[in-house]
Amino acid sequence: MCRWLAYTGSPVLMSDLIIKPKDNLIHQSLHAKSPRTPTNGDGFGVGWYDKQPMPGLYRTIRPAWNDLNLLDITSHIESPLFMAHVRATSLATIQETNCHPFRYKRWLFVHNGQIAEFGSMKQELMGKIAPQYFQNILGSTDSEIMFHLALSFGLEKDVPAAIGEMVRTVESTAKKHGVDAAIWMTLGISDGESLWGFRYGSDGKRPTLYASPDMSELKKLNPDIKDKIADHSHCLVSEPIGNYQDRWKPIPDNSWIQIHQKQVNEGHFQL
Amino acid sequence: MCRWLAYTGSPVLMSDLIIKPKDNLIHQSLHAKSPRTPTNGDGFGVGWYDKQPMPGLYRTIRPAWNDLNLLDITSHIESPLFMAHVRATSLATIQETNCHPFRYKRWLFVHNGQIAEFGSMKQELMGKIAPQYFQNILGSTDSEIMFHLALSFGLEKDVPAAIGEMVRTVESTAKKHGVDAAIWMTLGISDGESLWGFRYGSDGKRPTLYASPDMSELKKLNPDIKDKIADHSHCLVSEPIGNYQDRWKPIPDNSWIQIHQKQVNEGHFQL
Amino acid sequence: MCRWLAYTGSPVLMSDLIIKPKDNLIHQSLHAKSPRTPTNGDGFGVGWYDKQPMPGLYRTIRPAWNDLNLLDITSHIESPLFMAHVRATSLATIQETNCHPFRYKRWLFVHNGQIAEFGSMKQELMGKIAPQYFQNILGSTDSEIMFHLALSFGLEKDVPAAIGEMVRTVESTAKKHGVDAAIWMTLGISDGESLWGFRYGSDGKRPTLYASPDMSELKKLNPDIKDKIADHSHCLVSEPIGNYQDRWKPIPDNSWIQIHQKQVNEGHFQL
Amino acid sequence: MCRWLAYTGSPVLMSDLIIKPKDNLIHQSLHAKSPRTPTNGDGFGVGWYDKQPMPGLYRTIRPAWNDLNLLDITSHIESPLFMAHVRATSLATIQETNCHPFRYKRWLFVHNGQIAEFGSMKQELMGKIAPQYFQNILGSTDSEIMFHLALSFGLEKDVPAAIGEMVRTVESTAKKHGVDAAIWMTLGISDGESLWGFRYGSDGKRPTLYASPDMSELKKLNPDIKDKIADHSHCLVSEPIGNYQDRWKPIPDNSWIQIHQKQVNEGHFQL
Repeated sequence: MCRWLAYTGSPVLMSDLIIKPKDNLIHQSLHAKSPRTPTNGDGFGVGWYDKQPMPGLYRTIRPAWNDLNLLDITSHIESPLFMAHVRATSLATIQETNCHPFRYKRWLFVHNGQIAEFGSMKQELMGKIAPQYFQNILGSTDSEIMFHLALSFGLEKDVPAAIGEMVRTVESTAKKHGVDAAIWMTLGISDGESLWGFRYGSDGKRPTLYASPDMSELKKLNPDIKDKIADHSHCLVSEPIGNYQDRWKPIPDNSWIQIHQKQVNEGHFQL
Repeated sequence: MCRWLAYTGSPVLMSDLIIKPKDNLIHQSLHAKSPRTPTNGDGFGVGWYDKQPMPGLYRTIRPAWNDLNLLDITSHIESPLFMAHVRATSLATIQETNCHPFRYKRWLFVHNGQIAEFGSMKQELMGKIAPQYFQNILGSTDSEIMFHLALSFGLEKDVPAAIGEMVRTVESTAKKHGVDAAIWMTLGISDGESLWGFRYGSDGKRPTLYASPDMSELKKLNPDIKDKIADHSHCLVSEPIGNYQDRWKPIPDNSWIQIHQKQVNEGHFQL
Repeated sequence: MCRWLAYTGSPVLMSDLIIKPKDNLIHQSLHAKSPRTPTNGDGFGVGWYDKQPMPGLYRTIRPAWNDLNLLDITSHIESPLFMAHVRATSLATIQETNCHPFRYKRWLFVHNGQIAEFGSMKQELMGKIAPQYFQNILGSTDSEIMFHLALSFGLEKDVPAAIGEMVRTVESTAKKHGVDAAIWMTLGISDGESLWGFRYGSDGKRPTLYASPDMSELKKLNPDIKDKIADHSHCLVSEPIGNYQDRWKPIPDNSWIQIHQKQVNEGHFQL
Repeated sequence: MCRWLAYTGSPVLMSDLIIKPKDNLIHQSLHAKSPRTPTNGDGFGVGWYDKQPMPGLYRTIRPAWNDLNLLDITSHIESPLFMAHVRATSLATIQETNCHPFRYKRWLFVHNGQIAEFGSMKQELMGKIAPQYFQNILGSTDSEIMFHLALSFGLEKDVPAAIGEMVRTVESTAKKHGVDAAIWMTLGISDGESLWGFRYGSDGKRPTLYASPDMSELKKLNPDIKDKIADHSHCLVSEPIGNYQDRWKPIPDNSWIQIHQKQVNEGHFQL
């Protein structure tokens, strides 16, 4: 199981969310509460938007907790929109090209979950990727294939529609291979303007995904962040962070959320 | 351009061939004579056979010249049959899964050269790999695809025939994409019993490949190796090593060589 | 807290002890039972003796559980005497030169534990190292300083005496700096002939150290290993491994053990 | 021989100086013109100042030319004052803690050159470092010792005086060890306000160091940079970069330069 965090709002130092809060992503990666996945030491990545044409990317196979560069980079880069991800896997090889976020032009993509029996259907799924996106594939994970299928199905035009089509394609391919519960996912996606979160599982089981409490409410509880974070800021996380974890709101099953500037849209994930 | 070396014969410490000789592979990697590829700092790998069921593999993205583990491993492992490879590339990502040798069961494979405009035909070539071999692909290089195409075409039964079929497949696919000079290669291949070397280029140009001088002759020149290396031993290299480099024999254009115990077979590479 | 294992006896594949047994070192590194140190992802090393003049060394900062090279190397190298070590630390930097074993000529050294407030007395301790050993120091750990102090105090001639002198030196230096409980350690040491284990703590607390059950007894319980491991073989570990963990024998407090061929010597650790 | 670049002036993207110019540092690292040092593949580092209390640091043992993170980081971080360094060495181990810049609080330090026979006098030099700086030493290079000696001799108060004292100390220590030509160096130093460059060699031989041409002059030659770089900006480099390399001004032998805001001070390096 992987873990991820995505933020959009007023510019903040990335370390303020990735490293400083109680039970932050790095801490979670080392001290997992669940016995099933004892540690997330199989790679870390962060992608951020700024005024440059492409989002920046820092990915490393070092465990996040012992990477000095990670500490410095996140403590020096401010961003109004970024994603961070820690991997734990016994499947695809540990290499930087398998670390999230994945990037295509202005787009970033993080995933927690998996495609069941991915190895047996990988070749068939790769055949369905549109040629203009194929060369952007650098690694060997199911996550990267999911991203490029979604791109092939129009992610750049309609995010929920493309993700729906990607899920249907994986599920129908899986069915042919005799796999029933094909996909299990939360996704974080951005084009630098909007931030989308998805939560879905073919068999009803799915990883957790939470949205941050209302910032105005959080500021009353914790005046320290008053001048740091604007009221319209939002954070999505695989597991709550910080001092008020019971205030984080679970994203409902089979649904998505889009945060665009000060507006939040939600939708049911229709297949 | 990459460099490689393969050895078969009486068991020797791998460092005796990879590290100790004048102008050895590691030295070549740092001090390339040709201005075209100034350095081979993009990964190293060595694969060796011993009494274990699978050949061993050590692959690293560290430049070979600054990897202390490489020095220790090759100075402690004796093998009667091994291959070493140093990469220089501006193409596929620098990661261990892109380092040679590639391995499938008992088979090892190293490559110098390239498929022209590989990116544009990669998806099509991947579609031609037999499903039972597909899951063995871990990286993103043209070399690994060549190996798995050859496996799909019967490498385990008839090496020259499978390599011929692989080359024809790449060339015909390239033609459809408007690429004339499709492939440029030397290959080293082994199943732990035989060692094969191939040299071929679609347009007549191809990388160099040399076979070692006759060992009995070499021992007269250099009595130091008299007790180390048996007369029936052979070495294949992309560029000659050691003190008697003018004695190394170029492998002819479009041809192959098979060394099997004390026997050497040669053939023209027919397409 | 680190973990280590040392073996001496009939030659075995290193993976047979490091990777295959139940609750082996790699497994322990990922699934620590104690809540205090949740994971040992800060580096791995193995040193082995064979017929070469120096012991071999493979050290890596990759977590042991995701290092493919480690798997291959230990599955291909047989040795009659070797040591493996996994690190967990929030102190000295994660780099290969801080991974155990440390090596000087024929000697290997592994350590679990620490010198309290080492940073404040490091400079003074380094000043006490004999100049002929100083250049062999490559990293920044307390463990490496302990090894080189012991070398300076005659380790090559009398192991227990040199370790005693090293401990006394650390304790008296610590006292000057106002530190009472100065040292906390188990040590594994070898010159390629004998294997020594030490267990000591200035304040009475010390890490665990266990010796393997009698091999003849173990073979009755587990006939699978009958032909693999000779009766005179011994293993020292920070925590028991395998199926009969309750048979492992704790090394007593403040004592040492020397295994030399078929002979076992034990001593009280006198200061 | 190493290479380095330091910049102070109007904020620029670090890649505009490190990666984009003709014959830039990364290009130099791969295509060295001098036969003596064929490549600089032994580590890279960049340190930069921004509004955070400490300068940022990114150091890696990957060859600079194949590090995707380096490309992204330098293409996304703007800084008014930064230093970059590429290593080539056969001496101290390749590890991140041996990569420049070295950092102490607000201070950054890069070095090209060496202390002759450093190994034999390292212990003595380390004994001369003031205890409050000793714990900041993480690696094993002569460069880091030079920095910490200078700190011990008052670098934070008077840079040229402290560097002079450091050089004298190294030279007198060397003399005791029978070494005449003790030190060979160019240095780049900053506290986030000023940038200093030093050039010195005990035997009259010393590495090259150049200051950029006057920016107003450069803008006439290359109007592209007109809006990017302010007139008061300065760059120091071990070897000239860009299109007008003959305009770069060699720093005289045994001298230093200080750039402080719009002011440039120069001095003779008195010992």
